[in-house]
Amino acid sequence: MGETLLPAIGTEILIPACSLVAIAFALLQWLIVSRVKLSPGGLDSAGANSGSGKNGYAEYLIEEEDGLNDHSVVLKCADIQNAISEGATSFLFTEYRYVGIFMVAFAALIFLFLGSVEGFSTSNQPCTYDATKLCKPALATAIFSTISFMLGAFTSVVSGFLGMKIATYANARTTLEARKGVGKAFIIAFRSGAVMGFLLAANGLLVLYITINLFKLYYGDDWGGLFESITGYGLGGSSMALFGRVGGGIYTKAADVGADLVGKVERNIPEDDPRNPAVIADNVGDNVGDIAGMGSDLFGSYAESTCAALVVASISSFGINHDFTAMLYPLIVSSVGILVCLITTLFATDFFEIKDVKEIEPALKRQLIISTILMTVGVAIVSWIALPSSFTIFNFGTQKVVKNWQVSLCVAVGLWAGLIIGFVTEYYTSNAYSPVQDVADSCRTGAATNVIFGLALGYKSVIVPIFAIAVGIYVSFSFAAMYGIAMAALGMLSTIATGLAIDAYGPISDNAGGIAEMAGMSHRIRERTDALDAAGNTTAAIGKGFAIGSAALVSLALFGAFVSRAAISTVDVLSPKVFIGLLVGAMLPYWFSAMTMKSVGSAALKMVEEVRRQFNTIPGLMEGTAKPDYATCVKISTDASIKEMIPPGALVMLTPLIVGILFGVETLSGVLAGSLVSGVQIAISASNTGGAWDNAKKYIEAGASEHARTLGPKGSDPHKAAVIGDTIGDPLKDTSGPSLNILIKLMAVESLVFARFFATHGGLLFKI
Amino acid sequence: MGETLLPAIGTEILIPACSLVAIAFALLQWLIVSRVKLSPGGLDSAGANSGSGKNGYAEYLIEEEDGLNDHSVVLKCADIQNAISEGATSFLFTEYRYVGIFMVAFAALIFLFLGSVEGFSTSNQPCTYDATKLCKPALATAIFSTISFMLGAFTSVVSGFLGMKIATYANARTTLEARKGVGKAFIIAFRSGAVMGFLLAANGLLVLYITINLFKLYYGDDWGGLFESITGYGLGGSSMALFGRVGGGIYTKAADVGADLVGKVERNIPEDDPRNPAVIADNVGDNVGDIAGMGSDLFGSYAESTCAALVVASISSFGINHDFTAMLYPLIVSSVGILVCLITTLFATDFFEIKDVKEIEPALKRQLIISTILMTVGVAIVSWIALPSSFTIFNFGTQKVVKNWQVSLCVAVGLWAGLIIGFVTEYYTSNAYSPVQDVADSCRTGAATNVIFGLALGYKSVIVPIFAIAVGIYVSFSFAAMYGIAMAALGMLSTIATGLAIDAYGPISDNAGGIAEMAGMSHRIRERTDALDAAGNTTAAIGKGFAIGSAALVSLALFGAFVSRAAISTVDVLSPKVFIGLLVGAMLPYWFSAMTMKSVGSAALKMVEEVRRQFNTIPGLMEGTAKPDYATCVKISTDASIKEMIPPGALVMLTPLIVGILFGVETLSGVLAGSLVSGVQIAISASNTGGAWDNAKKYIEAGASEHARTLGPKGSDPHKAAVIGDTIGDPLKDTSGPSLNILIKLMAVESLVFARFFATHGGLLFKI
Repeated sequence: MGETLLPAIGTEILIPACSLVAIAFALLQWLIVSRVKLSPGGLDSAGANSGSGKNGYAEYLIEEEDGLNDHSVVLKCADIQNAISEGATSFLFTEYRYVGIFMVAFAALIFLFLGSVEGFSTSNQPCTYDATKLCKPALATAIFSTISFMLGAFTSVVSGFLGMKIATYANARTTLEARKGVGKAFIIAFRSGAVMGFLLAANGLLVLYITINLFKLYYGDDWGGLFESITGYGLGGSSMALFGRVGGGIYTKAADVGADLVGKVERNIPEDDPRNPAVIADNVGDNVGDIAGMGSDLFGSYAESTCAALVVASISSFGINHDFTAMLYPLIVSSVGILVCLITTLFATDFFEIKDVKEIEPALKRQLIISTILMTVGVAIVSWIALPSSFTIFNFGTQKVVKNWQVSLCVAVGLWAGLIIGFVTEYYTSNAYSPVQDVADSCRTGAATNVIFGLALGYKSVIVPIFAIAVGIYVSFSFAAMYGIAMAALGMLSTIATGLAIDAYGPISDNAGGIAEMAGMSHRIRERTDALDAAGNTTAAIGKGFAIGSAALVSLALFGAFVSRAAISTVDVLSPKVFIGLLVGAMLPYWFSAMTMKSVGSAALKMVEEVRRQFNTIPGLMEGTAKPDYATCVKISTDASIKEMIPPGALVMLTPLIVGILFGVETLSGVLAGSLVSGVQIAISASNTGGAWDNAKKYIEAGASEHARTLGPKGSDPHKAAVIGDTIGDPLKDTSGPSLNILIKLMAVESLVFARFFATHGGLLFKI
Repeated sequence: MGETLLPAIGTEILIPACSLVAIAFALLQWLIVSRVKLSPGGLDSAGANSGSGKNGYAEYLIEEEDGLNDHSVVLKCADIQNAISEGATSFLFTEYRYVGIFMVAFAALIFLFLGSVEGFSTSNQPCTYDATKLCKPALATAIFSTISFMLGAFTSVVSGFLGMKIATYANARTTLEARKGVGKAFIIAFRSGAVMGFLLAANGLLVLYITINLFKLYYGDDWGGLFESITGYGLGGSSMALFGRVGGGIYTKAADVGADLVGKVERNIPEDDPRNPAVIADNVGDNVGDIAGMGSDLFGSYAESTCAALVVASISSFGINHDFTAMLYPLIVSSVGILVCLITTLFATDFFEIKDVKEIEPALKRQLIISTILMTVGVAIVSWIALPSSFTIFNFGTQKVVKNWQVSLCVAVGLWAGLIIGFVTEYYTSNAYSPVQDVADSCRTGAATNVIFGLALGYKSVIVPIFAIAVGIYVSFSFAAMYGIAMAALGMLSTIATGLAIDAYGPISDNAGGIAEMAGMSHRIRERTDALDAAGNTTAAIGKGFAIGSAALVSLALFGAFVSRAAISTVDVLSPKVFIGLLVGAMLPYWFSAMTMKSVGSAALKMVEEVRRQFNTIPGLMEGTAKPDYATCVKISTDASIKEMIPPGALVMLTPLIVGILFGVETLSGVLAGSLVSGVQIAISASNTGGAWDNAKKYIEAGASEHARTLGPKGSDPHKAAVIGDTIGDPLKDTSGPSLNILIKLMAVESLVFARFFATHGGLLFKI
C-alpha cells in the first residue's frame, strides 16, 4: 500500500508555514490599504502608493481626478465610516451574546447526549471498526466533541468579526480612492477583500491543525476517536454561521428594504441619501450580513468538508496505519490552495491593472480562472507527494482500493465544477448578458412581468449547476466513494481565499458608494462606485454559487459519514420510513424560507413606519437642514434580527435531534437527503433571481447601451418596476437563499456528531 | 385466504350501473341548467324552475332582482357566450390536432420499444412472477399498451372537451341568474360544475371497465399481462393532460396577464371591460385552461391511480386466484364514490340554500366534509364485501399478508388526508383568514412587500399538506405496501365528482362575471358574480391541493409498481447512480417551471403589444364607440400556447426515455423520487401563493371589513400593489403550479409502461 513521499515532519512544517505566509500576506495588503489616510492630510501618502510605480496607474489613468482637494469630504467619510463600524460592532456583540448562550446550552447537550452513549463510562471500549482493539471511551468523545464544537464556534466568530472590521476599515478608503479613478478604487476594495480572504483561510486551517495536534496528545493512536471528536469543529463553525447568516441577513435586508421603500419609492430620493434615517442601518447591514455572515458561512463549509474528509479517512488503510501525512492530506490541499490564491491575487493587484469600468468584471473572472488552473497543477503535485500511490477506503461495509491520481481527479472535479457554477452564475446575474437584459426589458410592461421573468431566470439558472454537481458526485464517488465526495467539496473550496476576496469586494464597494452619496460627493464618483458595485453583485452571486455548490458536496460527504457511523448499510427510498423522511426533508427549505422571508418582511414594515414617522415629524429633514435619527433605525434592525433569527435557527438545529430521537436514523437519512436535493435548488434559484433583479435595475440606471437607455432613466416607469424587483430580490438573495446552504450542511454535520447517540437511543416512536 | 362476499356478477353489474346513474344525474343537472333560456323570451321558463318550489328561493330571496326586464342584455350575453364558446372550441381543436400527431408518434414508440423487449416474438413467454406458467408474448403487451394508451388519450380529450362545452354553456346562464340573486347564480354555476364532475367520473370509470373486459377476451387468465397493458390507459390520459394543462395554462394566462397589464394598469379600465381587446381571449382561456385542462388532469390522476392499484393487485393472491371482484376493488370504490358524491350534491342543490354571499364558501366546504364522511362509511362497506378478509400482496420480492379492514383504512387515510389538504389550502388562500389578510395588509408598503409576503405564505402553506401526505404514506404503506399507497391515492380521488364540481364552479363564476361586465350589466350584479368568483378562487386552490396531494400518492404508487416491474429490490440513496438521479430529478420541476413561466411572460408581452396597438390605432375604442379586434388577441394566445407547450411537454415526456435508455433503471428511480419530493412542494406553494394574491386583491376590492376599507378602494396604491401580486400569481397558480403534478405523475407512469424495455435495453452509458 506504500508510503507517502512527504515525511510527517514535512507536513508538520508545511501546514503552519502556509498559514503564516497567508497571514503575513494579509497584513501586507492591510498595510497598503491603510496608506489611504482617512484624515485630510493623508492624501499625499496615499499618492505615494501609486507613485511607487508598482501599479503605475499614474501614466495610464484616463479618468479625471475629482474632488481631491475637498478636505471636508474626507472628514465626512471618516465620520460615516465610524458610524457604520460602531453600528456593526455593537450589533455583532449583541448577536454573539445571544448566540453565545445558545452555544453553551447546545454544548451541554452534545456532552450529555454523546456521553450517554456508553452510560458515561470512563473505561476504554472496543473500537467500532476493529473490535479486537481498545479505543477511548465514548465519554472522551463527548468531552472532546464539546471542546471542538466551542472552538469551531469561536473560530467562526473571529472569522466574521475580522471580516467586518476589515470591510468597515476599507469602505471609506475605497470611496476616497474613487476620486482618483475607478482603477484605484477597485484595487483598494479588492485588497481589502484579500485581507479577509487570506486571514480567514489561514485562521481556519491553523486552528484546526493545532486542535488536531493537541487532541492527539490524548488520543494517541486512536485516530477513529480523534477525528470523530474533530467533527464538532465543523458543527460549531456551522451553527455560528447559521445565526450569523440569518441574523445578519434579516438585519441587512430589513434596513435595505425599509430604506428603499420609503426613500426611493415614496420620497423619490436617491439610494443611500443621508436624509434617509435607515441609511446607516443599511450600510451596517452590508457588513454584518454580507461580510460577517458570509465569512462565517464559508468558514463553516471549509471546516465541515475538512472534517468530513478526515473522519472518512480515519478508517482508511493509511488512517489505520497512522500515516500522518496522508491523513492530513485535506489540510495540505488547503495549504497549497492558499499559496495558489496568493499568486492569483498578484494578477489582480500587481500584474494587471484596471483602466476602465468594463475591465472590472473580466478582472474578477480572471481571478477564478487563474486560481482554478494553478490549483489543478497544485493538487496533482500534492496528491503525488502526500498520498500513498494506492490505499483502501471504507465504503459502507466494503473496502475500495483507491490510487492517489484518482483522489487528485476528485479534487480537480470539484474545483472545475465550482468554476462552471461560477461562470453560469455570472451568465445569469451579470447585466452583460442577455438573461438579465431580458429581465430589464420586461420592466417595460411593469413590475409583474419583471417578477415573472426574474423568477423564471432563477429557476432556469439551476439546470447547469445541478448537472455540474451531479457529474462531480458521480466521478468522485466512482473513484473514491465518500472520501472522493469530501475531497471534491474541499477542491471547490481550495481556492477559498480568492473566492472570499472577490466576494467581500462586493459589499465593500456597495458601502463605498453609500459613503460617497452620504458625504455628498460628486455624481461622477458615485458612478464609479456604482460600476464597482454592479460587478460586486455578480461576484456576490458567484460567491453564493460556490457556497451552495460546495455545501451540496459537503453535506453529501457528511451524510455519507453519518450513515457509516450510524451503521446503516442502505438508505432505501422504497422503505416508507426513508421516503417520508425524504418528503419532509424536501419541505424543510420551504418552511425555513417562509420564516426568514416573513421575518424580513415584518422587520422591513417596522422600519418603513419608523422612516415615515421621521420624515413626517422631523421638520427640515427632506430639505437636508435637519439630521435624521439614525440610531433608532439601527435599533429596529438589531432587535428584529435578534428576535427573528431564533425560530429558523431552532428549526434547523432541532430537526435532526427530534427526527433522530423520535424516528431514528433511517428517517433522518431521508430527511438529510431530501433537504439536500431540494434545498440546493431553492438556494441557487433564490440567489440568482435576486442578483439578476439587482443588476437589471443597475443596467437601467447605468444606461450603458442603446437598449438600456430606452428603459431609463432613473425614475422612469420601467426603472420603478425594476426597483420593485430589486426589493423583492433582497431577502431572496441575502437572507433565505444563502442561509439554505447552511441548513443543508448543518443538519448533516449535526446528524454526524450525534450519529452514535441516535443509533443507540433513537427511533423511540417506531420502537413503541 | 377466503372469497369475497360480492360475487363477480355483482361487480359486473355494479360498476356500469353506477356509471350510468352518474350520467343520468349529470343529464338531469344539465336539463335544469338549460331551463335558463338565453333568449329574451326565455325568462319565464327560467322562472318556472324556481317556481317549481324545489329550491324555494322565491320565498326567502332577500336580494333585489335587478335588470330582469332588460332584454337586450340577454341577447348581449348570448352573443358573448357564443364568442367564448367558439374561441374555446377552435383552440381545443387546434390543440388536439397538434397533440394528436404527437400522440400517434408516441404510440408508435410504445409499440416499438415494448415489442423489442422480446425481439417482437409472437410465441408465449414464461410469466414474470411464476416461471412455470406461460404468459402472452411481449408483443401482445406492446399492442395492447398502445391501444390503451390511445384510449386513455381519447378519454382525456373527451373529458376536457365536454367540460369546456358545459362551462361555456353555463357561464352566461349564471350571469343571467345573478340578476335574481346570488343564491340562484350559485346554484346554476354549481349544477354546471356537477354536470362536468359526474360526466367525467362516469366516463373514466366506464371506459376503463369496458377496456378491461375487452382485453380480457384476449388475455384470459394472464392477468399480469392484462393489467400491465392497461397502464397504457393512465399514460395516455396523463400525456394528454400535460399538453392540456400546459397549453391551456399558457393560453389563459397570456391573455389574462396581457389584458390586465394594459387594461387595469395602464388604461385604468375595469377587469373584463368589453373595450379591452384581450377580454374574449381571457374568458376563452378560463375554459380551455382551468376547465378543460383541469378536467384532463384529474381524469389522468384517476386513471393512473386505478392503473397503479390494478397492476400491483394483479400479482396479489386474489389476482393469481382470479377473483374478479377483489381485482376490480379499485373500480368498485370509485363506483361507490360516485353514489356518495351524488348524495353530497343534493346537499348543495336541494337540501340547503344560499341566501347570502357569506354562505357560499361554507356551502362549498360542507360539500367536502359531507362527501368525506359518507365515503368513509362507503369504503368500509365496500372493503368488507369486495375484498377477501385476508390476502397477500407482493412487496418488493416478499409477500405481505393484508386484511380487508387494513385496505379500508388505507383508502380512508387518503380520503382524510385530502380533506386536511383541502382545509389547509382554504386557510391559506381564503380572504376570511389572517394569512391572506396579512398579505393584503402588506400592500400598504407596495408591491414588493406584497410579493415577499405572498411567496412566504406559499412556502409556509406547504408544511401541513406534506405532513398529511407523509402520514398517509406511512400508514397506508405499513398496512398494504404499494397497494395501500395506490388505494390511498384512489381514496383521495374517490370523491372526484364533488371535487370537480366545486372546482369547475370557479371558472364558470369567473366567466359569468366577465360576461356581466361585457354586457354592461349593473354594478350590483357584478358584485354578486365577484363574490361567487372569490369563493371560486379558494375552491380552485382546494382543487389544486387535491390534485397535487393525489398526484404525490399516485406517483409514489406508480414508482413502486415501476420498481417492482423493473426488478429492482432497493433504491439506495447511497449509490451514486441513484443519488445523481435524485438531485437531477429534484431540479426538473424548476426547469419545467422556468419554461412555462417564461412562456407565459413572452406570450403576455406579445399580447400587451397587440392590446396597446389597438388602443392606440383604433379611434373611439376607449370611448366605447368602436369595437376592438378580439380575434387577433385570440390568435396570439392560440399560436403562443401551441408553440410554447412543446418544449416543456418534450422535457417531461423525453426525460424518462433518455434517462432510462442512457442511465438505466436505478438512476431513473432516483429521478422519479427526486422530482416527486421536490415537485410536490413547488406545486403546492405556487398554487397557494397565486390563490392568496388573487384573493388579497379581491379582499381589498370588496372592502367587506373595516380593515379592508382602509386599504381600498379600487385604484388606491395598496390596490395597485395587490394587482401586481395577482398578475405574478397568474402563471404560478394556473400554469406552472398545476402542471407540475402532471410532471411527477407522468414521468412515473411512463417509466412504468417502459419498465421492461429499460430493464432489458437500458443503461447504455454505464454499460460502456
